[in-house]
Amino acid sequence: MKNRSIILAKRPLGNPKHDDFALQERELEEIHDNEILVKNFAISLDAGFRNWMNEDAGDEILPAMPLGEPVMGLSLCEVIETKNPEYLVGDKLMARFAWQEYSIGKPGDFIAKLPKDLSFPYSYYLGVLGDTGMSAYFALTEIAPPKKGQTVLISAAGGAVGSIAGQIAKIYGARAVGISSSLEKCDFLINELGYDAAVNRKAPEGQAEAIKAVCPDGVDIFLDNVGGETLQAAITNMNHRGRIVMIGAVTHYTSEGPPTAPNNLFELSSKEITAQGLMTHFRHDQYDDVRRKLEAWLSEGKLKSFEHKLTGIENVGVAFCQMFDGQNFGKTVVDL
Amino acid sequence: MKNRSIILAKRPLGNPKHDDFALQERELEEIHDNEILVKNFAISLDAGFRNWMNEDAGDEILPAMPLGEPVMGLSLCEVIETKNPEYLVGDKLMARFAWQEYSIGKPGDFIAKLPKDLSFPYSYYLGVLGDTGMSAYFALTEIAPPKKGQTVLISAAGGAVGSIAGQIAKIYGARAVGISSSLEKCDFLINELGYDAAVNRKAPEGQAEAIKAVCPDGVDIFLDNVGGETLQAAITNMNHRGRIVMIGAVTHYTSEGPPTAPNNLFELSSKEITAQGLMTHFRHDQYDDVRRKLEAWLSEGKLKSFEHKLTGIENVGVAFCQMFDGQNFGKTVVDL
Repeated sequence: MKNRSIILAKRPLGNPKHDDFALQERELEEIHDNEILVKNFAISLDAGFRNWMNEDAGDEILPAMPLGEPVMGLSLCEVIETKNPEYLVGDKLMARFAWQEYSIGKPGDFIAKLPKDLSFPYSYYLGVLGDTGMSAYFALTEIAPPKKGQTVLISAAGGAVGSIAGQIAKIYGARAVGISSSLEKCDFLINELGYDAAVNRKAPEGQAEAIKAVCPDGVDIFLDNVGGETLQAAITNMNHRGRIVMIGAVTHYTSEGPPTAPNNLFELSSKEITAQGLMTHFRHDQYDDVRRKLEAWLSEGKLKSFEHKLTGIENVGVAFCQMFDGQNFGKTVVDL
Repeated sequence: MKNRSIILAKRPLGNPKHDDFALQERELEEIHDNEILVKNFAISLDAGFRNWMNEDAGDEILPAMPLGEPVMGLSLCEVIETKNPEYLVGDKLMARFAWQEYSIGKPGDFIAKLPKDLSFPYSYYLGVLGDTGMSAYFALTEIAPPKKGQTVLISAAGGAVGSIAGQIAKIYGARAVGISSSLEKCDFLINELGYDAAVNRKAPEGQAEAIKAVCPDGVDIFLDNVGGETLQAAITNMNHRGRIVMIGAVTHYTSEGPPTAPNNLFELSSKEITAQGLMTHFRHDQYDDVRRKLEAWLSEGKLKSFEHKLTGIENVGVAFCQMFDGQNFGKTVVDL
């Protein structure tokens, strides 16, 4: 049987481009004892994976992705053949598998079973009920729960995490302000996602001034998906004892050479700011509980899912690039 | 009556130099209603005040220091004339007064009364029982209390805060590792202050490698007084969910143009590190309680005070410069 994959053709420099990725067809291997064969039916695109496309980028979560091999990601899949008694044919899973039509799961891979009866569309389990929803939830409940009336600033606010985080801030009665990369996206933040105000990251007066204009009382909580100059501009506007949750740092993934900003870290001391990093990967044990809470908000209509969908294995690299070009509105998913 | 002061003669560029300061003699003014006249008998030197010597450096704690005027600092003093019923002649105070022999205290100045009967030498109330002791205490008890056996890394470890913080880390059963600016100071850290290991900030292999060599199991808590490249090197060595307390950032006070390091802030996300800023100025309401705890440790012999003492108003600027040149061992105080 043939298996089509998207391989890492080149190591991206800066933002990933279409020809960093290529379609490859290979014969599917046989599975061995304790392995499973799955058919991937949806691929999740997450900016954080960009980090492991660089040479020597390996860490405790993932090794650096090798050139010429299928790109690692997160997928929804169904077991179609099993030599592992824990998994039955027909089981639906969320797993850290590559961008391909079929994958072989081995013991030790990150694999989570999805419930038999899903209350929501599959793709929700990659977005609002998956890693990105979890990130927004942990950030604004465990790490930095907003008080009523506080100002919550969110970067990459129209992206996967930001589209949920803004809604959670509103659920808690906070004022949600989003930073985004275009005027079109700023409209989306306010008109679709319910943000109270939006900041264009490319505003001619600079991000710090643009944030100040819509946050005259300062920022109490900042959720950062971007890093670099955006983080610097937010720090300038933070209030005393403000809290920063560092979820991601797109600037760091894509910069050629070391990113230099922010240069105002002294303000973390002088304003007694707390900055805390969050990687949802380390909280898999809480996923089931949190998923139920997010499902409740979805059912009550307090939370909505926003998805940017493409179709076909040949479009997985395309979808990944669109995310860095700011073309995604909400969570990016490719249906296979 | 004559009053001698040290004025800010020039705005320092980088590390302060002797001729940034000058001795000036003026006639002492009369005091008005609700004012007090005090004789300063000891001046505290604190690196953090460097920050307000820059133009436009004013913030919620202090305005930028004006050129040609006495330099602001922290002093111990005795009331010698009073037109304020709250203060009696003979009261001993700690106050944010300038580098001068006599000062006039006005309502609204930061002034704290010292107890009538002091159990320790006066200068302790500027060091181990003053702002610097408080900083070390808050950092390692409230913000990042170490667990037994954890590794606590401290920058500017032989300075005012570091000389106390290392001892507190040991009281809690942690391993204390200090970063300092010379081999001579590294010896001081180990032989006098009881640090378990020391890192020379100017080690030829670079700070990150030098830290790694003495912290093979990584760093659990980092107390930073320095910022910049030292912070960057520490982040590289931090363990998952490590904690950073940002007490000061000497690099930021003295850099010409914006400091660029650290460039590895993404590791705050990937290792879920928490970084928290601390300014003891915001915790004056807890000083009496904490002072009693520190006094108990001093009485029990668990904590020692290390002081770098000079004498005479003409040496206050000199003492300040020595601190930035790494010539101080412990807390720098000038007796008048």
